[in-house]
Amino acid sequence: MPITVKALQKFGPDQPFKVTEIERRDPREDDIVIDIKAAGICHSDIHTIRNEWGEAHFPLAVGHEIAGVVEAVGSKVTKFKVGDRVGVGCLVNSCGECEQCAAGFENNCLNGAVGTYNSKDVDGSITQGGYAQKVTVNERFVLRIPDAMEFDVAAPLLCAGITTYSPLARWKVEPGQKVAILGLGGLGHMGVQIAAAMGAEVTVLSRSLKKADAAKELGAYRTLATTEEGFFTEHRGEFDLILNTISAPIDLDAYLGLLKPRGIMSVVGLPPETLPLHLNRLIGGGKVLTGNNIGGIPETQEMLDFCAQNGIAAVIEKVGIDEADAAYERVVAGDAQFRIVIDTATFDDAEVTA
Amino acid sequence: MPITVKALQKFGPDQPFKVTEIERRDPREDDIVIDIKAAGICHSDIHTIRNEWGEAHFPLAVGHEIAGVVEAVGSKVTKFKVGDRVGVGCLVNSCGECEQCAAGFENNCLNGAVGTYNSKDVDGSITQGGYAQKVTVNERFVLRIPDAMEFDVAAPLLCAGITTYSPLARWKVEPGQKVAILGLGGLGHMGVQIAAAMGAEVTVLSRSLKKADAAKELGAYRTLATTEEGFFTEHRGEFDLILNTISAPIDLDAYLGLLKPRGIMSVVGLPPETLPLHLNRLIGGGKVLTGNNIGGIPETQEMLDFCAQNGIAAVIEKVGIDEADAAYERVVAGDAQFRIVIDTATFDDAEVTA
Repeated sequence: MPITVKALQKFGPDQPFKVTEIERRDPREDDIVIDIKAAGICHSDIHTIRNEWGEAHFPLAVGHEIAGVVEAVGSKVTKFKVGDRVGVGCLVNSCGECEQCAAGFENNCLNGAVGTYNSKDVDGSITQGGYAQKVTVNERFVLRIPDAMEFDVAAPLLCAGITTYSPLARWKVEPGQKVAILGLGGLGHMGVQIAAAMGAEVTVLSRSLKKADAAKELGAYRTLATTEEGFFTEHRGEFDLILNTISAPIDLDAYLGLLKPRGIMSVVGLPPETLPLHLNRLIGGGKVLTGNNIGGIPETQEMLDFCAQNGIAAVIEKVGIDEADAAYERVVAGDAQFRIVIDTATFDDAEVTA
Repeated sequence: MPITVKALQKFGPDQPFKVTEIERRDPREDDIVIDIKAAGICHSDIHTIRNEWGEAHFPLAVGHEIAGVVEAVGSKVTKFKVGDRVGVGCLVNSCGECEQCAAGFENNCLNGAVGTYNSKDVDGSITQGGYAQKVTVNERFVLRIPDAMEFDVAAPLLCAGITTYSPLARWKVEPGQKVAILGLGGLGHMGVQIAAAMGAEVTVLSRSLKKADAAKELGAYRTLATTEEGFFTEHRGEFDLILNTISAPIDLDAYLGLLKPRGIMSVVGLPPETLPLHLNRLIGGGKVLTGNNIGGIPETQEMLDFCAQNGIAAVIEKVGIDEADAAYERVVAGDAQFRIVIDTATFDDAEVTA
């Protein structure tokens, strides 16, 4: 018997949210049903539901920063029990058998991982995301949320946290290194905290100094305005690593010049445009340009534990489901400091409107 | 008293070689005088002396693949003695004090390393390369040539060898990995041998299959023609590492598609053009695009020892100094299989012509 729950869906890219009823599958033997407590609003949700990244399948509920409590478990579930505090990120399935899955990189599954929303699931249905009361997920894709962490500040870690933790851990940021975080939004504010907790001297690079105080509170050593005259000359060769969290096009050659020899620029924000690159900016000094796409499940758990140990969480603002449309406008305008999270308790009294 | 030696110089980018006399400095306390036995012809020599990479300072002797015997040593030289078999590569000096030099990356010296030719030396003179009878070099930049290795097949290792060894070692190529070498010229033929000796399954990628037999002899598992219809689809996601040794522009997005998730494309051939890149080719699968510029001195010694242990050397053709102009034409035409080396013994009876 499928489980009927309330969800926040859109029926088209330009439509407002409606409260609907959707069905979650009854747990299979390795599934978990989660009672959702908080769902973060990620910029990817907006790109997807506005058809900016290709075609969305409507009606659609997005949301891949999900935190809640285990409500039911399938007969062969071993990792979790009813009442456990858990989360789900960007993935809800993968083949589990290819060399990437075997190595814990389900995000790179060679047979195609299943995204938490707008993806074709193994049964052919289109996945519906976390802007809902409950969700049923295979236990492999469920993370344990440390006790020290509230649901609302944990939820954004499932996407923004792992997206920034994964490259910083992969490239082994260590004490004393000079790390630049380009952009201070939902991703950047996690990157600053994580890099600082790894012991790096963190510089925020931004078009202006507007968020300099906020950056300092998050653990940054300083903020530099990239629009200052002579910026790229003055800071030439300074950084061990630059984490680019913005999705606007940037001058790659100029930013690569800010790296030390053998320095690394990792990109997690995706501009739609093709960018020009001169390979001498990589050959001279043996520099690295790389990208990162969330992380695997084991690394996501590692990130949650790292954040709990270091007292890191997302800086959030909570909204009810009736404020979701307005919240989207604020995220697009860059007005959210730094993550807006939907309080799913506000579903309880909401009327189904479509 | 400076040492007068014969050299092969050009007086302008379009001029033929002339046999001239140049002066090498009397050894300072930490210098070594090398009696040159063989000097490899690197494509960089040609780019430089033809003004294709900026302005050359004429009259100029190029050559940065130098092998020979120690003829004299300064009073404080400790690493070498008269009679030792030695080599010199692309560098003859650096500050020795910055963090890069301290870490053995003299090639990335923050105060500017001194190239073996066409560079301003510490005394203000312009360095003259290895197409000559002798050279005086600071001992830090002198390498030991293993006894098992002839001078003529050792010389090209000092540039082509380290240029390909360094990225393969840096990215830890290991047994069973699938490595593609793009281009089979002076660099590529070293890359194939080194990657195969590291245990990789090596594929040569070339526009045609013309050199497939030669590639197999060097240790390649196979050669694939990149111009075959459907090549980039058929070989999608196959390689752990691609070493790009060609200096013609390539379609970066297409080649990045040949990599496995977290695969690495390292570029050592430099096209003059700016190339388009779509960052989704790096973000999807967390891929790496990087470059490499020769290597540091400790790593160059490591490379020579690795080659000796594995029976690797350059595949060469020897020419006299009177054949150097013709050899340049053949290198540019891609006719050399795989490296042309100047037998400096042919200076002995040569008349000075300018």
